[in-house]
Amino acid sequence: MGEGRLTKEALEQFIKAQCPCVEEFGITCEELGSGYAVLRLRYDERWLRPGKYIFGGMLMTLADIAMYCAILSVIGLKPMTVTNELKINFLRPAVGGDVLARAEVLKAGRRIVYGEIRLFMADDAKKLIAHATSSYIQPDG
Amino acid sequence: MGEGRLTKEALEQFIKAQCPCVEEFGITCEELGSGYAVLRLRYDERWLRPGKYIFGGMLMTLADIAMYCAILSVIGLKPMTVTNELKINFLRPAVGGDVLARAEVLKAGRRIVYGEIRLFMADDAKKLIAHATSSYIQPDG
Amino acid sequence: MGEGRLTKEALEQFIKAQCPCVEEFGITCEELGSGYAVLRLRYDERWLRPGKYIFGGMLMTLADIAMYCAILSVIGLKPMTVTNELKINFLRPAVGGDVLARAEVLKAGRRIVYGEIRLFMADDAKKLIAHATSSYIQPDG
Amino acid sequence: MGEGRLTKEALEQFIKAQCPCVEEFGITCEELGSGYAVLRLRYDERWLRPGKYIFGGMLMTLADIAMYCAILSVIGLKPMTVTNELKINFLRPAVGGDVLARAEVLKAGRRIVYGEIRLFMADDAKKLIAHATSSYIQPDG
Repeated sequence: MGEGRLTKEALEQFIKAQCPCVEEFGITCEELGSGYAVLRLRYDERWLRPGKYIFGGMLMTLADIAMYCAILSVIGLKPMTVTNELKINFLRPAVGGDVLARAEVLKAGRRIVYGEIRLFMADDAKKLIAHATSSYIQPDG
Repeated sequence: MGEGRLTKEALEQFIKAQCPCVEEFGITCEELGSGYAVLRLRYDERWLRPGKYIFGGMLMTLADIAMYCAILSVIGLKPMTVTNELKINFLRPAVGGDVLARAEVLKAGRRIVYGEIRLFMADDAKKLIAHATSSYIQPDG
Repeated sequence: MGEGRLTKEALEQFIKAQCPCVEEFGITCEELGSGYAVLRLRYDERWLRPGKYIFGGMLMTLADIAMYCAILSVIGLKPMTVTNELKINFLRPAVGGDVLARAEVLKAGRRIVYGEIRLFMADDAKKLIAHATSSYIQPDG
Repeated sequence: MGEGRLTKEALEQFIKAQCPCVEEFGITCEELGSGYAVLRLRYDERWLRPGKYIFGGMLMTLADIAMYCAILSVIGLKPMTVTNELKINFLRPAVGGDVLARAEVLKAGRRIVYGEIRLFMADDAKKLIAHATSSYIQPDG
């Protein structure tokens, strides 16, 4: 990246301008470090599926955005970084509260950036509700 | 399942009542067969990410719902069937139009049901834009 | 690739020279087309796990080699093409006979080549025993 | 499991009797804890692919066996526990030495057990060479 680390504020401004649905989904950035990001999905009855579980699609969306933010923290604000693939395993139902996703970059290559995302209920950081891994392709990599 | 095959109408009614966000996302069922389902994601500028690509999270959501429908066509209306894992590879940008997802069950076991989902632009059935595979867990399996 | 399509004979010669374990595993190329390859794993009691199932590791190895061959049929003999990721779902036990793997390229991009691999018992092409998807990275892509 | 934890010695004896190829591949158990296992793949020129990289198939085999051992450390010696799916991302070439795989159970459910496996060169525990996640199905789960 150019000069200096990507700040949480610059990232939020960029996401707001370029990915309006993130705000609509109730997803916000809690923390942005060097190589990791923590995002929150606000509980909303709109995203429920049978069993009052939070819909898997919304958890995958959260995981993908969290990894995107973690990667931008490493490579800088390159919007055209795109997901190559993502796999997620759902481990426990997400029920009745906010969800946090912690994405971490495990390898930043010239072309491929890879990482993992751990999802848990905001009020219980010990119980994983889902675990994802994902590789992204850098533009002009 | 009980008596008779799950009809598209019964499925739509169930989804509308139990998963309200599906309608909000602009996702509808185009076709429901025995072991497969075709769903459509209506183009909406709300779901764009940088590059005017349709957001990966929305495509994963579409893939997951399509597989859920395909599975219910085989095992009947068991709402508590849940995703165990899903992997998706993004092959081409989804740009400027509706997206179709065709989910097909490849193996329906007593406990695990597995299938694949192919996503393409509605106006070009030849170009895969994404490919997903997913295993689901049957309730009381 | 340079001049002309990769032939099955040239591929076999290359594999024999560069990947000696393929022969040791009892894996051979049955068919090589433009964008696909069919490989065979000869039944061998050495590769059994509890239940007399063929060991999952050997099936993953077969899937990976089959995709490598299918990709080389498209991009030519570029040995340094490497696996980025591979996911496999095991659908039925592989028991008592040879296994065939049919790998097909679904998207050949400049940097990433993606495809799927279907594994079945050689004497029953209808019953999938495993299904894999995989992305490879082209050298100098 | 019956009475008491599965010991490394009992596991080794079981693997030797039931999965003879593990020894042939040069794979041994270094450490077995409650919910994790560390396995070693001895360097062997037989397992090389172009570039003198250790063959991906052998690394997938190592990852799968490591997870199997980690799971048995939790649920006891249930040989018919089988892999449902495994995804692996290759992050760096494995070159010129032994490889270690550390598998850890992240969720042990009644039917599905899930975990992750980290692979690195034995002489450099800091550089991940591959990362896998996998779900297993318990017998009679």
